[in-house]
Amino acid sequence: MTDLTQMSLIEAAEAVRSRTVTASELLEASLARIEQTDATVGAFASVQADAARADAARLDRGEATGPLHGVPVALKDLFFTQGVATEANCDALRGFTPDADATVVSRLRSAGAVIVGKTNTHELAYGVSCPASRNPWKPQRMTGGSSGGSAASLAARQVFGALGTDTGGSVRIPSNCCGTTGIKTTRGAVPRDGVHLISWTYDTVGPMARTAADCGVLLDVMAGFSRLDPYSAKTALAPAEAPGALVLGVPDEGFFDGFETDPEVRAVMEEAVDVLGSVVAEVRTVRVPHTAEHFDAGAAIVFAESAALLEELRSSRNELIGEEPRTIMESGAAIPGTALAAAQAQRMAFERAYLDVFDDQGVDLIVAPVNPNQVLDHGVVELGGVPLIPATTQFTFPVNAAGLPAIALPGGFAGDGMPIGFQLIGRPFADRTLAAVGEAFQRRTDHHAQAPRL
Amino acid sequence: MTDLTQMSLIEAAEAVRSRTVTASELLEASLARIEQTDATVGAFASVQADAARADAARLDRGEATGPLHGVPVALKDLFFTQGVATEANCDALRGFTPDADATVVSRLRSAGAVIVGKTNTHELAYGVSCPASRNPWKPQRMTGGSSGGSAASLAARQVFGALGTDTGGSVRIPSNCCGTTGIKTTRGAVPRDGVHLISWTYDTVGPMARTAADCGVLLDVMAGFSRLDPYSAKTALAPAEAPGALVLGVPDEGFFDGFETDPEVRAVMEEAVDVLGSVVAEVRTVRVPHTAEHFDAGAAIVFAESAALLEELRSSRNELIGEEPRTIMESGAAIPGTALAAAQAQRMAFERAYLDVFDDQGVDLIVAPVNPNQVLDHGVVELGGVPLIPATTQFTFPVNAAGLPAIALPGGFAGDGMPIGFQLIGRPFADRTLAAVGEAFQRRTDHHAQAPRL
Repeated sequence: MTDLTQMSLIEAAEAVRSRTVTASELLEASLARIEQTDATVGAFASVQADAARADAARLDRGEATGPLHGVPVALKDLFFTQGVATEANCDALRGFTPDADATVVSRLRSAGAVIVGKTNTHELAYGVSCPASRNPWKPQRMTGGSSGGSAASLAARQVFGALGTDTGGSVRIPSNCCGTTGIKTTRGAVPRDGVHLISWTYDTVGPMARTAADCGVLLDVMAGFSRLDPYSAKTALAPAEAPGALVLGVPDEGFFDGFETDPEVRAVMEEAVDVLGSVVAEVRTVRVPHTAEHFDAGAAIVFAESAALLEELRSSRNELIGEEPRTIMESGAAIPGTALAAAQAQRMAFERAYLDVFDDQGVDLIVAPVNPNQVLDHGVVELGGVPLIPATTQFTFPVNAAGLPAIALPGGFAGDGMPIGFQLIGRPFADRTLAAVGEAFQRRTDHHAQAPRL
Repeated sequence: MTDLTQMSLIEAAEAVRSRTVTASELLEASLARIEQTDATVGAFASVQADAARADAARLDRGEATGPLHGVPVALKDLFFTQGVATEANCDALRGFTPDADATVVSRLRSAGAVIVGKTNTHELAYGVSCPASRNPWKPQRMTGGSSGGSAASLAARQVFGALGTDTGGSVRIPSNCCGTTGIKTTRGAVPRDGVHLISWTYDTVGPMARTAADCGVLLDVMAGFSRLDPYSAKTALAPAEAPGALVLGVPDEGFFDGFETDPEVRAVMEEAVDVLGSVVAEVRTVRVPHTAEHFDAGAAIVFAESAALLEELRSSRNELIGEEPRTIMESGAAIPGTALAAAQAQRMAFERAYLDVFDDQGVDLIVAPVNPNQVLDHGVVELGGVPLIPATTQFTFPVNAAGLPAIALPGGFAGDGMPIGFQLIGRPFADRTLAAVGEAFQRRTDHHAQAPRL
C-alpha cells in the first residue's frame, strides 16, 4: 500500500485490525502528510506527535479493543484534552489546559483512536469561516467554519476522522466547502461536557470524515448518555432504517424565498435528489418552515447564551476576545430576560412546525442545500453587504433550532472545481439512518472520493 | 341514593352509565350543593348552570360516549372556555372570553363531562393561597393555592373532579390544605394550549378529585400529545406499574435542612411511609437534591417568563393587575437575558441530579411533605416574615423544575382537625403509576373519605 492516507477510516481501521499496517505506520503516514501539507492548509492549531506516537506504540503492543484501534483522528480545538492546551483560536483562552478529557474524547480513546492534534476553528466556534485554515481545493478559498480545520485536515488526507461542533452549521458548512462528510447530530445525542460551548440550546457535537460510513463508525463511538452533561439525552440513537423504505421530502420554492441560492448549488441538490430517487422508496415535495420564522429568535438565544456561558472570560479577559465574538456577546448581554424567554417560546413553536413536516407530510428525510453560496474567498467577511452568519446559514441554523440531525454530503463540483454539497435532515435520533442513506448515496456517486491536489 | 354528591367520580360515572341516576339528576345535586355551600367556601368564580343543564340533558338523550359521561366537573378559571369568561381572578382579564375551549377542556367534554363552572384561583395562578376561596374544613383557614377553588369545590362535595395547574405546587398545595387528591403531571404530558400561563418551563395542568383512582380517570382523558401546544410531548404516559414491584425512597435529613417542618406534617409523612411499606416492594433512604440548589434559578425563570408571557397585558392594563403578581413580574422584567440563560442551565443540572436519584439510588418513588406548614389562616401573606411562596414551596417547586409527576394524597389530620397530606414523586411519564400507588394507599386508609361538615 503506497499511500496509506488515501484510505477511508473504515479501511484504515481494517488495515490495522488485520495487521496489514501497524498503528505506528499509519500514524507516521498521517504525520508525514501533515508535515507535507499543513503549511498550505493550516488545519492544525497544535499537533501532539509524541503523545500520538506513544499511543500508537501502546496500541500496537495490545489487542484491538475498539472500532477505531490505531486510527489517527483530529479534534477541533474546542474539545478538552487532558494536559493539552484547548484554546478555541481565542487569545483569551491561551494556555487553557484542561485537567481531563471531554467525554467524547475519552470515548474516542477507548475505541482505540490515536489523537494526532487539535484543529483550527473560527474563534470560539463563533462564525462560519475559519481564518486560520485554507481550503485544500484552492488555498485562496475559505474552509468554511467554524470546524474548518477538521474539514481541511480530512480533505487534505491528514487524518481519517475528526470531531466538529455545530451551532448553526459549523459541522456542515466546512464539510460542504471542503468536499467532506459530516453529521450535525440530534440535540442531546452526543455529550457536550468538556467542550467550549457558546449555546446550551444550539450546540451539538458531530463526527466528520471523508465518507458517510466513516461518520457512522465515529457516531457509534461518540453517541450515548453521559451523566456529566445535564443536557445529554437518555434516548439512544435509533437503529438505522433501510434507505429503501424511506420517503424523501424536497422543499417547495417557498423554502428558498428571500435568498439568492447559487444556481450550481441548486443543480447539485437536484442531481442528488435524482440519485436519491433510486435509493429511497419515494420522493415528494414538502412545505418546510422558512428560516425567517426562526432567525431572530435563534440569534437572540445564541447571543444571550454565549454571553452567559463566557461571562467569566468576558469579565476577566474581554480585551483578548476577538472583535467579532466580543461584539456579538456584547449584544447578547444586552438582551432582556423577557426577550430571551419569548425567543425560546418562538423557537419551540418553530421546532414543532419542523417536526410536523415529518409527521404530517409523511417524509423521513428532507433534502436542502448547505450554503446558498459557493465557496467564498479566504478572508471574505460579508456577502452582498450582509455579515456571513446571516448571509450563509439560512439552510443550516433552523435545523439546530429544531434539534434535528443532518448529514452534509459532497454532491458535485462547481465550474471552478470547488466542491458543492447538500444536506439530508432527519427525525430526532435518526442520525444512523442519515449515515446509512449517505452511504447508499456514496455507493452510487464518487464526489466524496475526489481529492484535492496538494 | 340519598346524597349523590358523596359519591366518588368513578361511582358517579358508573351510576349514570347504569342509569341509576341521570346526568341531569347528578347535575342538579351538584348545583344544589353549590347553592348550599358556596357562600361559605367561595369555590366558584362563575357557575354556568344553564349550559350545564343543556349538556346534561343532551347526554341523557344519547348513549354514553366516554368515561366521564354525565359527571359534573369544575375548571380552574385559567382554562379557556368557549364563550365563557376566563378571568384568572385578575381585574386586567375581566371580560376575557375565549373563542374556543382549551384542548384539555375539549377532551373533558368529549369524554362526557358536564362543566359546571369556573373555580377561583390565586390571581393569575401566581401565588400559593387563593383569597377568594375559604377552606371547607374551617372557613377561617385558607384553601392553599393557586388552584384553591378547585380543591375547595371537591372537599365541599360540589363536583366530582376538577382541573388545576401547578407551577410550583398549585395543584398539590390546595389538595393538601383541603384534604383532596391531585396530580402534578409530567412536564409536557398534558397540553397547555388555551390556558393562561405564567411559565413555559414550569406550568403543568393536572387532575384534581377526592380519590387517586378518580384522578387516574381524569388523567387518562386529559393526557396525550396536542399539536396546538408546542411544548406537548409525543411521549405517552407509561402504563401503571404494579405498586408491589416498586421501591419507595424516603429523603434523608439533609432534604429538610434549613426549614422548619411542622412535627405533625412530618408525622403524617412517616405514617404514610409505614402504610406504603405494605404496598411497595421496599422502602429505602435516599439523598434528594435540596431545594436551595434550585430556588433562585427557578424564581428567575418563572418571574422572567411570566413577564414575557403577560407582556401585552402588562403594557395595556398594568394598573389592573394586583400588586403581588405585578410586583413579581416587574422584577421578572428586570432580569437580564444572561441571568435567565444561566438559570436555565442551573435548572437543567438540578433536573439531572433529581433524575439521577431514581437511577442511581434505585427507587421508583420519592415521598415528601407537600407544605412544611399546617394549613394557614385565611388572609395570611407571610410565614415567619418570609412571603408565602418561598416559605411554603420548598418541597413542591423543585418537582416542577425537574419536570416530574407528583401526586398529593391526604395522609391524616392535625390536632385541630385540619387535613395534612403528603406527596409521592415519580419518574417522568410515570403519572399513572402514581395514581395506582395512591389508589393502593387509599384502599388501606380512609383520610380521603373524610368530609368536612358544611
